[in-house]
Amino acid sequence: MQKQALLYTGKAKSVYESADADRLILVFRDDTSAFDGKRVEQLARKGRVNNLFNAFIMQKLADAGIPTHFEKLLTPDEVLVKRLDMIPVECVIRNYAAGSLCRRLGIEEGRVLTPPTFELFYKDDSLGDPIVNESVAITLGWATAEQLAKMKELTYQVNDVLKALFDQGNMMLVDFKLEFGVFHGQIVLGDEFSPDGCRLWDKDSKKKLDKDRFRQGLGDVVEAYEEVAQRIGVDLSGI
Amino acid sequence: MQKQALLYTGKAKSVYESADADRLILVFRDDTSAFDGKRVEQLARKGRVNNLFNAFIMQKLADAGIPTHFEKLLTPDEVLVKRLDMIPVECVIRNYAAGSLCRRLGIEEGRVLTPPTFELFYKDDSLGDPIVNESVAITLGWATAEQLAKMKELTYQVNDVLKALFDQGNMMLVDFKLEFGVFHGQIVLGDEFSPDGCRLWDKDSKKKLDKDRFRQGLGDVVEAYEEVAQRIGVDLSGI
Ligand SMILES: Nc1ncnc2c1ncn2[C@@H]1O[C@H](COP(=O)(O)OP(=O)(O)O)[C@@H](O)[C@H]1O
Ligand SMILES: Nc1ncnc2c1ncn2[C@@H]1O[C@H](COP(=O)(O)OP(=O)(O)O)[C@@H](O)[C@H]1O
Ligand SMILES: [Mg+2]
Ligand SMILES: [Mg+2]
Repeated sequence: MQKQALLYTGKAKSVYESADADRLILVFRDDTSAFDGKRVEQLARKGRVNNLFNAFIMQKLADAGIPTHFEKLLTPDEVLVKRLDMIPVECVIRNYAAGSLCRRLGIEEGRVLTPPTFELFYKDDSLGDPIVNESVAITLGWATAEQLAKMKELTYQVNDVLKALFDQGNMMLVDFKLEFGVFHGQIVLGDEFSPDGCRLWDKDSKKKLDKDRFRQGLGDVVEAYEEVAQRIGVDLSGI
Repeated sequence: MQKQALLYTGKAKSVYESADADRLILVFRDDTSAFDGKRVEQLARKGRVNNLFNAFIMQKLADAGIPTHFEKLLTPDEVLVKRLDMIPVECVIRNYAAGSLCRRLGIEEGRVLTPPTFELFYKDDSLGDPIVNESVAITLGWATAEQLAKMKELTYQVNDVLKALFDQGNMMLVDFKLEFGVFHGQIVLGDEFSPDGCRLWDKDSKKKLDKDRFRQGLGDVVEAYEEVAQRIGVDLSGI
């Protein structure tokens, strides 16, 4: 399947139409951004690593019964997906405290969160992806109560599947964000799951293996992503 | 009933034990604070106006079947209340956009919110009363899911009662915050309802009649509170 018109250039991916009106092609770029796009760098191989990583995860989630937009890998940096009407909120589950939760509530990084927390953020870089809740999302017309309940339920299911997967690779899934959209009336997982949008720590050393290496200037960003991929069995030989 | 040991000095009220272990005495002071206590001023009569105002409102709410801590007025600035185990979250309903919602989401002040939104804030001045949600409140042990559901239900009931009351006084109830606590296992409305913790606008002129006059340096703060009281029939002759 060939790329057609460019629809949207995001911070990390470019979105193209395909020959099928119901399918899009996502191109994973090497651009790596932080602080709502205020810092951007090119990290060699990152696009391809994330594309293959995401394809692997999406297939694991589909195997577990979660509806996803993933259709098939086209090239090392391109994937064919269902064309969704995206819901502009990010669904975040935290198994351990980190990031904005620590800053907002003054709690120490790494605190175990039982049960895992669920939060919503409004996807808007110019506003700094502000925190919202279901009530605000409904009133402002971003989603219905039923859609939000489904997104929450699916996010917890994803957490169960992926906690176990990363645990087998001796990693803690600290937190992650998902984006959902609507496809023919159904809530479907879209966007990507990669170390760009989650936190993963080595269980023993607590070494960070995710985008916090970029945010915090720790170096070896893509090397860490590749290590995560290798630990859970993602085949990166096509890169 | 006489005040006994001082338990707590808040930003606007002082809390005393009473002869009854299950009852407290709240003393409404003239202190008026904004920006999480960073700015404090004395506004003559404010304590007594708010005490009488709050007593009037709490009785209206009790008449509507809402469980409140209010027992009886003791003096113009003292009230006897049930002693609650306070839940450290503020429940906020907004009928129109204002304040932090506008800043956070970039929406214009006064936008009608249908249905009214419901938000939770963690009561902690040192953190700036950060926004939270039910999931975080449960995980951090502040309240149970059942307690939070009850608080939300009661806050919407309060909104229905008070929207109508202020409407009769030609005012818009823009938003308000409530605090709840537990009394013998039951969720009960505590703290106060006064122009210190809500936004009220004149329906025609949109003149602000609440604590925003203080926050924004508009002057005539207590005069506005007294006007609100007079419009809804609060008897301030005891002051
Ligand atoms: N299946 C899909 N259908 C339509 N849009 C999608 C799909 N999956 C992801 N998107 C959107 O495409 C964009 C992906 O590019 P990205 O670089 O992540 O953008 P952003 O800077 O907005 O995060 C995002 O806006 C995302 O919401
Ligand atoms: N019925 C009650 N039982 C116990 N505590 C109460 C009750 N009503 C209010 N409080 C608490 O008493 C304090 C009231 O004082 P206030 O000046 O409003 O304090 P703050 O600066 O914490 O807002 C608040 O902490 C409030 O939560
Ligand atoms: Mg993105
Ligand atoms: Mg208070």
